[in-house]
Amino acid sequence: MTRLRVPVQLRWSDMDAYGHVNNVELLRLLEEARIEAFWAHPAAAVGDAAAPEAAAPQDAAAPRDAAAPRDEEARHDDRERWPTAVLDAGPGARTATLVARQEVEYLRPLGYRRTPVLVDMWIGHLGGASIDVCYEVQDAEPGPAGPYARAVTTLVLVDAATGSPRRIGEAERAAWLPYVAEPPVFRRRGR
Amino acid sequence: MTRLRVPVQLRWSDMDAYGHVNNVELLRLLEEARIEAFWAHPAAAVGDAAAPEAAAPQDAAAPRDAAAPRDEEARHDDRERWPTAVLDAGPGARTATLVARQEVEYLRPLGYRRTPVLVDMWIGHLGGASIDVCYEVQDAEPGPAGPYARAVTTLVLVDAATGSPRRIGEAERAAWLPYVAEPPVFRRRGR
Amino acid sequence: MTRLRVPVQLRWSDMDAYGHVNNVELLRLLEEARIEAFWAHPAAAVGDAAAPEAAAPQDAAAPRDAAAPRDEEARHDDRERWPTAVLDAGPGARTATLVARQEVEYLRPLGYRRTPVLVDMWIGHLGGASIDVCYEVQDAEPGPAGPYARAVTTLVLVDAATGSPRRIGEAERAAWLPYVAEPPVFRRRGR
Amino acid sequence: MTRLRVPVQLRWSDMDAYGHVNNVELLRLLEEARIEAFWAHPAAAVGDAAAPEAAAPQDAAAPRDAAAPRDEEARHDDRERWPTAVLDAGPGARTATLVARQEVEYLRPLGYRRTPVLVDMWIGHLGGASIDVCYEVQDAEPGPAGPYARAVTTLVLVDAATGSPRRIGEAERAAWLPYVAEPPVFRRRGR
Repeated sequence: MTRLRVPVQLRWSDMDAYGHVNNVELLRLLEEARIEAFWAHPAAAVGDAAAPEAAAPQDAAAPRDAAAPRDEEARHDDRERWPTAVLDAGPGARTATLVARQEVEYLRPLGYRRTPVLVDMWIGHLGGASIDVCYEVQDAEPGPAGPYARAVTTLVLVDAATGSPRRIGEAERAAWLPYVAEPPVFRRRGR
Repeated sequence: MTRLRVPVQLRWSDMDAYGHVNNVELLRLLEEARIEAFWAHPAAAVGDAAAPEAAAPQDAAAPRDAAAPRDEEARHDDRERWPTAVLDAGPGARTATLVARQEVEYLRPLGYRRTPVLVDMWIGHLGGASIDVCYEVQDAEPGPAGPYARAVTTLVLVDAATGSPRRIGEAERAAWLPYVAEPPVFRRRGR
Repeated sequence: MTRLRVPVQLRWSDMDAYGHVNNVELLRLLEEARIEAFWAHPAAAVGDAAAPEAAAPQDAAAPRDAAAPRDEEARHDDRERWPTAVLDAGPGARTATLVARQEVEYLRPLGYRRTPVLVDMWIGHLGGASIDVCYEVQDAEPGPAGPYARAVTTLVLVDAATGSPRRIGEAERAAWLPYVAEPPVFRRRGR
Repeated sequence: MTRLRVPVQLRWSDMDAYGHVNNVELLRLLEEARIEAFWAHPAAAVGDAAAPEAAAPQDAAAPRDAAAPRDEEARHDDRERWPTAVLDAGPGARTATLVARQEVEYLRPLGYRRTPVLVDMWIGHLGGASIDVCYEVQDAEPGPAGPYARAVTTLVLVDAATGSPRRIGEAERAAWLPYVAEPPVFRRRGR
C-alpha cells in the first residue's frame, strides 16, 4: 500500500497536566501532517513571511494582501516533495477546504520526545467533492506495539466564491488516486 | 430527554486563519464542557490555586503535592451543580480517565462571539468500564439552523494504581443513568 | 485608581505538564481580557456566527464577508459594558491593532480552578498612536498573597489601508483617559 | 558572539484570525527553542513514549512513573548536541525551573511558512540562581530586514524538594558561560 509519511515535531506544550500528549492536541498533529501533504503552498496562501519589507508596524488586518504569487518554480518544488499537495486552499484561493468530520481512536498514550512522530496518511475514500484522509501515528521506528492512534478526516472541497461544494478536478484525482486504500477499522465504533 | 447543558466561553484565539473556530479547537470546547459536567472537583485534583501561600518561587515540578483535600462542603457544592460530576480523575486520584475514541461532525462554521456557546451532553452508552459522552454544540438560543457540531467521546475508567480498566461503580452508575439516551446519528460515517 | 476588572475563565488545557497554568498561556488570558475591554464588537468584526444561514458547507476562506454590520443598538450595548471598548479592530475594520511589546512578571504559580480569575487592567501610557495596557491577575477574592502576575502590552494603532501608525482619535482618548495610571513596577527588570 | 541557533518548525495553527503568527504563540516558539537548548533530556523527564509496552489502556494519571532512567549514552548524545542542555528539570528531577519574567518586542509580522524559523539564543545574565535567556527570531537566511522579534526570559532554578531557589552549580555555570553576552536593547521599554 502506498502511504504518505510525514514526520511531525512534537512541542513540549502538546502535553497536558497528565504528562502525555493531550487527546485534542493529537488532532493538531494530524492537521499539520495533512496540510504538509495536501496543500500546494500554504506559505504563500496565508501570510507570506517574505512580503514584509521593513521593521515598521504593518497592517496585521490584511492577510489577503499577503497572498503574493510565488514563482512557478517554487510551486513546482512543493509538488515534487508530495505529489498529493495540489490543494490551493488558503484565503485568496478559489477553493476552500472544510473539515466535515473526524474520527479518532487512541490506542496507547503518546509521551513527549524530541524526535518527530511519523504520521502515515492515505485516502480512504475519494468522492465527488470530498476525500477521507486516513492516518496512523507511528514511532520513528514503528515497532510491535503498533500505532498510537488511528484517525480519519473528511474534507469537502468548496468553491470559495459560491460556498457550494465543487467537484474534485482531474488533476487532483490523478494526484490522489495512487494513495487510495481501505480506511482503518475502528474497534470501538458502534458501541 | 434529559441533557446536561454547559455554557462554554469562546476565546478569540479559538479562531484560525480562516476566521472561524478551528475544527481542532472545537474539541477543546467539548473537553471543557465534559470536565465541567463529569469531574468531581478538578480544581482540587489538579493544582489547587489556594495552596501556594506566598509570592516566593515555588516548586512547579510537584503538582502531586497540590492535590490537597478540600472540605466536604466544597465537594458537596460541586455535586449539587452537576449531579453527574462524580469522576475523581486527576493526579493523585484512584481513577484515571482515558479518552479512547472521538467522533465529530461539523455541520456549519462556528464564528467567534462574546457570548458562550451551549454544549449539550448526554450519555450514549453506559458500559462496564466506559461511557460514551455525546455532544451537540448550540447557540445561546438554539434556532432552526440546528447545532454547529455533533460528537461522541468514549471515556475508559482506569485504576490509577494498576493501569487496568476498572468497573463503573454503583454511585457513578446511579448518577449517570438519568442521562442515558440514543447517541447522535452521524450522517457522514461509513462513506 | 480606576481599573477595568474582567473575569476570565480558565481552561483545563491551560495547564502544562507541571500542573499549573503555563507561562505562555497566561498571556493568552491577558489577550482575552484585553479584547473584552478594548474591542468595540469583535463578534461582528471577525466571523459573525449569526451570518451562516444553513447547515450546508460554506466558504470558510472568506472571513471578510462575515464582517456584517450589526445594528446600532448592539454596538451601544457593548460600549455600555466597557466604556473603553471603542477599538474597531478586526478584518474589514479601518484600524488594525498591533502588539508591539509585552512584559510580564510571574509572581506565584497559578493553579487550575473552576472559577474565573480576575484580570485588572488600566492604561500605563496613552501615547500618540499607542497605548500601554497594564494588567494584574488576581483571585476572585484578592487576598494578602497579592497578584499572580503583572504585565504590560504596548498596542499600536495602524491604518488598515496604508499600514502606517495612525493617531489616537478624540473619542478614543476620551474613553481611555479615566483609566490612565502609573504602570506597574517590575521588580526583576534590568538585571 | 557565541549563540545557540535552534530551528523551530511553525504550525499552521500558530496563525490567528489575522493570518500571521499570533503574538502569544511567538512565545510558544521561544519556549520550544529554550527547552531544546537548555534541558538535558525532557523526553525521559516527562512521559517517555518508549515506556508504554502495549495497546491496552494505561494509567494516564501517573506521569511520575514515566520518568524512566535512560542510559548514559543517550544522555551523552543530548549534551553533545547542545552543550548548554544541562538542566534536568522535569517531574521527578531535583530541580524545577520557573519562568519568572518575560519581555518581548515584536519588530515585524511573522507569516506562516513551511521552513523553520531560527531562534538565536544567548545568556544575557548569569546570576546566582537565575539566568536570562535572550532571543532573536530570524529567517532561515537572516536578511537586512532584521529579526522578527527580540525577547528575554528569566529562569529561576528551584530545589524541587524544598521549593526554594538553589544556586547554579559549577557544571551548569561552565556550560553556560561561553554564551553570556549583552542582553538585547528594547526600543520601546520605559515609555
